Amino acid sequence: MSTFGREYRVTTYGESHCKSVGCIIDGVPPGLALSEEDIQVQLTRRRPGQSALTTPRNEKDRVTIQSGCEFGYTLGTPICLTVANQDHRPRDYSETDLYPRPSHADYTYLQKYGVKASSGGGRSSARETIGRVAAGAVAEKYLSEAHGVEIVAFVSSVGGIEMAQMAEGSGGMGGEAFQQLLGSVTRAQVDGNAVRCPDEEAAQRMQEEILECSREKNSTGGTVTCVIRNAPAGLGEPCFDKLEAQLAHAMMSIPATKGFEVGSGFSGTRMQGSEHNDAFEADGQGGLRTRTNHSGGIQGGISNGQSIFFRVAFKPPATISQDQQTATYEGASGVLAARGRHDPCVVPRAVPIVEAMAAIVLMDAVLQQNGRAATRGVLAPVPAHLKGIKPV
Amino acid sequence: MSTFGREYRVTTYGESHCKSVGCIIDGVPPGLALSEEDIQVQLTRRRPGQSALTTPRNEKDRVTIQSGCEFGYTLGTPICLTVANQDHRPRDYSETDLYPRPSHADYTYLQKYGVKASSGGGRSSARETIGRVAAGAVAEKYLSEAHGVEIVAFVSSVGGIEMAQMAEGSGGMGGEAFQQLLGSVTRAQVDGNAVRCPDEEAAQRMQEEILECSREKNSTGGTVTCVIRNAPAGLGEPCFDKLEAQLAHAMMSIPATKGFEVGSGFSGTRMQGSEHNDAFEADGQGGLRTRTNHSGGIQGGISNGQSIFFRVAFKPPATISQDQQTATYEGASGVLAARGRHDPCVVPRAVPIVEAMAAIVLMDAVLQQNGRAATRGVLAPVPAHLKGIKPV
Amino acid sequence: MSTFGREYRVTTYGESHCKSVGCIIDGVPPGLALSEEDIQVQLTRRRPGQSALTTPRNEKDRVTIQSGCEFGYTLGTPICLTVANQDHRPRDYSETDLYPRPSHADYTYLQKYGVKASSGGGRSSARETIGRVAAGAVAEKYLSEAHGVEIVAFVSSVGGIEMAQMAEGSGGMGGEAFQQLLGSVTRAQVDGNAVRCPDEEAAQRMQEEILECSREKNSTGGTVTCVIRNAPAGLGEPCFDKLEAQLAHAMMSIPATKGFEVGSGFSGTRMQGSEHNDAFEADGQGGLRTRTNHSGGIQGGISNGQSIFFRVAFKPPATISQDQQTATYEGASGVLAARGRHDPCVVPRAVPIVEAMAAIVLMDAVLQQNGRAATRGVLAPVPAHLKGIKPV
Amino acid sequence: MSTFGREYRVTTYGESHCKSVGCIIDGVPPGLALSEEDIQVQLTRRRPGQSALTTPRNEKDRVTIQSGCEFGYTLGTPICLTVANQDHRPRDYSETDLYPRPSHADYTYLQKYGVKASSGGGRSSARETIGRVAAGAVAEKYLSEAHGVEIVAFVSSVGGIEMAQMAEGSGGMGGEAFQQLLGSVTRAQVDGNAVRCPDEEAAQRMQEEILECSREKNSTGGTVTCVIRNAPAGLGEPCFDKLEAQLAHAMMSIPATKGFEVGSGFSGTRMQGSEHNDAFEADGQGGLRTRTNHSGGIQGGISNGQSIFFRVAFKPPATISQDQQTATYEGASGVLAARGRHDPCVVPRAVPIVEAMAAIVLMDAVLQQNGRAATRGVLAPVPAHLKGIKPV
Repeated sequence: MSTFGREYRVTTYGESHCKSVGCIIDGVPPGLALSEEDIQVQLTRRRPGQSALTTPRNEKDRVTIQSGCEFGYTLGTPICLTVANQDHRPRDYSETDLYPRPSHADYTYLQKYGVKASSGGGRSSARETIGRVAAGAVAEKYLSEAHGVEIVAFVSSVGGIEMAQMAEGSGGMGGEAFQQLLGSVTRAQVDGNAVRCPDEEAAQRMQEEILECSREKNSTGGTVTCVIRNAPAGLGEPCFDKLEAQLAHAMMSIPATKGFEVGSGFSGTRMQGSEHNDAFEADGQGGLRTRTNHSGGIQGGISNGQSIFFRVAFKPPATISQDQQTATYEGASGVLAARGRHDPCVVPRAVPIVEAMAAIVLMDAVLQQNGRAATRGVLAPVPAHLKGIKPV
Repeated sequence: MSTFGREYRVTTYGESHCKSVGCIIDGVPPGLALSEEDIQVQLTRRRPGQSALTTPRNEKDRVTIQSGCEFGYTLGTPICLTVANQDHRPRDYSETDLYPRPSHADYTYLQKYGVKASSGGGRSSARETIGRVAAGAVAEKYLSEAHGVEIVAFVSSVGGIEMAQMAEGSGGMGGEAFQQLLGSVTRAQVDGNAVRCPDEEAAQRMQEEILECSREKNSTGGTVTCVIRNAPAGLGEPCFDKLEAQLAHAMMSIPATKGFEVGSGFSGTRMQGSEHNDAFEADGQGGLRTRTNHSGGIQGGISNGQSIFFRVAFKPPATISQDQQTATYEGASGVLAARGRHDPCVVPRAVPIVEAMAAIVLMDAVLQQNGRAATRGVLAPVPAHLKGIKPV
Repeated sequence: MSTFGREYRVTTYGESHCKSVGCIIDGVPPGLALSEEDIQVQLTRRRPGQSALTTPRNEKDRVTIQSGCEFGYTLGTPICLTVANQDHRPRDYSETDLYPRPSHADYTYLQKYGVKASSGGGRSSARETIGRVAAGAVAEKYLSEAHGVEIVAFVSSVGGIEMAQMAEGSGGMGGEAFQQLLGSVTRAQVDGNAVRCPDEEAAQRMQEEILECSREKNSTGGTVTCVIRNAPAGLGEPCFDKLEAQLAHAMMSIPATKGFEVGSGFSGTRMQGSEHNDAFEADGQGGLRTRTNHSGGIQGGISNGQSIFFRVAFKPPATISQDQQTATYEGASGVLAARGRHDPCVVPRAVPIVEAMAAIVLMDAVLQQNGRAATRGVLAPVPAHLKGIKPV
Repeated sequence: MSTFGREYRVTTYGESHCKSVGCIIDGVPPGLALSEEDIQVQLTRRRPGQSALTTPRNEKDRVTIQSGCEFGYTLGTPICLTVANQDHRPRDYSETDLYPRPSHADYTYLQKYGVKASSGGGRSSARETIGRVAAGAVAEKYLSEAHGVEIVAFVSSVGGIEMAQMAEGSGGMGGEAFQQLLGSVTRAQVDGNAVRCPDEEAAQRMQEEILECSREKNSTGGTVTCVIRNAPAGLGEPCFDKLEAQLAHAMMSIPATKGFEVGSGFSGTRMQGSEHNDAFEADGQGGLRTRTNHSGGIQGGISNGQSIFFRVAFKPPATISQDQQTATYEGASGVLAARGRHDPCVVPRAVPIVEAMAAIVLMDAVLQQNGRAATRGVLAPVPAHLKGIKPV
């Protein structure tokens, strides 16, 4: 349904042609300094029309905090965030309404709900993601202030073009070059080019690929990679709500996603255990760290304190600016005429959405684990052998 | 936590060294004919020790229905299923307990819970999956009887060895050979060889690879592909509980998984929209079907009536039969000595687990969608233009 | 938290001094004809300032449908409903802010959240109930159209004044006079007087009692009784989500409630089984009905098709127009000065809130039971002896 | 459904005629010392056959911890608790199966599930409460160790006989005598007589009333009052999951309950605000306490640190040892013959069930509030005026 999370609980609403879109966030930690500007910055990054690579519509997308804050601080009560739609009347009927758009959600929404929204795909609209990004920005504010968490996503491939650090020769996701990138990449670097790829050379080629697609009235897919630095150890709720399972759920709920991998991912299936295992060593601060990070910062479904990283696959957008041979809802063959210009590639705009969903998952996991740890903390200590310490 | 699903709700319990493992299933449709044998068949497929490729322990794993059934029919009340552990006492303390096993869950479980189970990884034990498989078998019984749903998983790669139908030249997951396989593959075919790969030639090579790993006291990863045939259209609960998001969550909650892709998956990111889009055509029975199936049977997060298929990545098992240079919980460098023999590759045994989680996700989605559809069904019909039919 | 329900899921937001209050409703059946006016009617009944008996503030409380509807029909997607606050800035600091108001929520909100809202009690504000009433009106629209359900609440006592039909001599809640009233009472009758009690004579005395309280700068409590007619049999989800448990949860979540009883309630504890048991008889339409209704329409946690009725206790409002001897947050004794005029009795305004929560509980139960029944419906029938029919 | 709680989550299973009954508890704090005996003590109090006042069956009801504990400590993983049924085969068919028992759950279970359990009422069986009591004992162990929480329930009335401390003249629930009792009553005192009423004189009369009922082959109702001492302030999750709402939900989910009231309850509706308000005073330890406790320890849905107390109404048991004129499932009038001897009054046995549900609600609230408080705790402090302190 439209609610995500158990203790940090985000409920979104809104489609393309209604009055507004937004969300209610329940479970926000009280006493967090929060302003509309904290949220706006990510909404603006999500907004279309920022470059020649994205759709030209210049939506304003200004967020309003309706509730849950006073004098610049969160109260701990639900925060409702709204963004007005420019285009708030249902679309007039047209011939194209006779056709479910191929690989779009028109057909399945009608199958499921028995009612056809004028936009066709109802909540599958990209505007649905506004509520996610807003809720993610609030989570991120907390995570940053409380734990110095840094969440940075970037475009790692567009069509067949991959950034150099992920290419085969370089050792892939587990390779040194890529690990180094994950350790240092910033949002400023990511926003250094329109395609949001921190490898400038690859970004250039990706940009050309997207423009070429646009000229051909076609679209292309790509991948977004995300790293979470400084996440505390102990997050994730086995057995079903393992941290990677929640991240996968979150990412695969973003429109147009087709795949998710964490740590070594699919390429890890081709490794041997002795090579894949992340050996431990002292971290110099009384704890442990791993020497490698094929696990992607998660072991047994629980964060281990190392960087968490994962990659999300986005298919080429279904809406293209060329005619398509298909069938009407009633089964008659025909041609669905192209209408308007469309985003040939969504991955640059997907970057803040991926970051937002990552922040929401983490914030929820923090609240749950803090509850457990604080509750356990007042009990008498357990015997040594139950803590991995040699009994005397 | 340990509960999965909203209306078909599975709660599992148990680790390696306790009295029993199992689950409670709430929300089972009443009036379903059900026997212990219906469940046992999948538990037996999951059981280790079935061939030279898996661990030699011969666990019995007989399931008992504790509640929720009478005279061979489900009552609609919670069904508790239990399987006794042979090995039900906590393990004695040994030197190896000083070391968190690399890439296992020992370290993170201790970080999270502050208590070290004698098994180290607590619920990350493979025995935890018994409850899943049992609950999946019940779901599958319903889906099969009510809708003729067929769920078949198989090993599609082991280490670097892929089945021919998925190889590059063949067109990959979207290729004709693979699509044909998905349309017809049966469990009998899958169980035709020990490695559970329906491509006999590849299976032979996979088997050799696993034995080689075993000889080298190492382990290897692999992938499991799963197809769901005859799933009704309309399943999945946008925007957060899209069908692929729930499948991803379910699959990534299985121990040792590192990735998930649905339909065209990661390879779809390299396609163009005009090629990737699945055009519609009349299905000859008054409805629509798609001519291709890059969507993997899900569009906008909702099943469209075509076959649903996805692939899951499993890393090489962390427990290997060779010594490992690592550190103790207290940070001292040292060598964790190998102990006993271990499963060099989990993917053959993962096959029924993947099927089970798929069945659980589907059953839950069916209950939710049936509730919506039945509730809507008693209202007066909506105007034609709200159903994709041209207004007169 | 701020979400109620599993399949019909209401999330509310807002407090006294923010921009707006309202809710998101997820799980609304698609294809339901719905207008803002359908919702406004109950919001207007909830609004203060309707008579001399309630607070004089004349809030406008106009509802706006932000999403989830097009062309007058619900889409099945989340419906966001908002009502602007007139008073949307945090209150300026004053001396009274040093005192937690006795029996109000100021003290406990600060204990819980560590942040003091300018209104003191944060979400304990009566304005929080606007989202409930709006969401209840949507549920009620469905229940009425689909099943002819009628939900009518009314004031059954104010202070020590009870309506005649409930008085001791009359046989109490189980008595004939009261049962007859429950079978026929309408909202028009209830709204026939300012106090919303369908016994005109008692209403007159209640009104005097309230005015007397007002003159004395004091407040008084009361009870609201609610009947639900034409609810289908089979609603409620044992064992924890029995229908009466969900109704109790819903009602006891309304501000100022102190008690709940269903059917014979507390007076039923003084009856004997032979007298309390509701014997069955044929209902003349192929089914069964009960001859009496001490059960209040619910048996074993499941509706039996008879009228459901229950009673809710409301304490006297904590905010009174007289000075109170108490202590500051910091523990200094002192006098909290009275400020302004306040509602001396909330029960007349609570009537639509009780109705709304009843509708929400019922709608959620209908969706869940419809899911089960439709899912079971496609299986083969069970043997006769499993249906209470004598085996041949 | 059969799961209760969000962070301390109890899922029960089992009916009268299956192999076992019990529960899985998820979210148990790790590191808690726990033995089967800790649980058994409350199960034994719940067990029938302890005195002439309850049913003569002598069930053994020995609990087994299946999982989640090692070396006498909880692991933080799910704890499965089972109790074998003596009577584990479905009952043979008999003539009485043609009749739904009046005011029992037979009719509604068949309406809901479409399948008739041999026991008639399926999960409405009293044996269902075993899982609750077991899960409550675990919660209670934590609450006692961590916070010194004391939960004591007792029988406050049987039929028309009330304990002296609650009688009209004495000032009722808010009266001094009753408040004093609540402050000191122990389980040992409660178990001092068979009827579990700490007023010996009333207990004597209650006992006679029950025996009289038994002789008359009839049954009687009663009330159970429960006090929770030393609960921390800050528990409860407004607006829908207020502490009293969760307690009401929990109590009204116990079989045979008809009413719930907290603090002043229904009698509070007859009070005026100036009398009902609980003024604050310094507690001598740097905090505040209230001078009276009409609120019952909860204000605005959140515990305030004072004793929490509430009362639960139980109807007379539906199963009586006399013939009843009623109708068959198929609508034929007839006489349902009495069979066997039955418990004429359930309230003495309900005492540990009420305590268990109270403990479960509290434990869940503690986990949630601890999560919030710990999460907020690492943020910078808010300005003074947001904490009820006069700004300088």
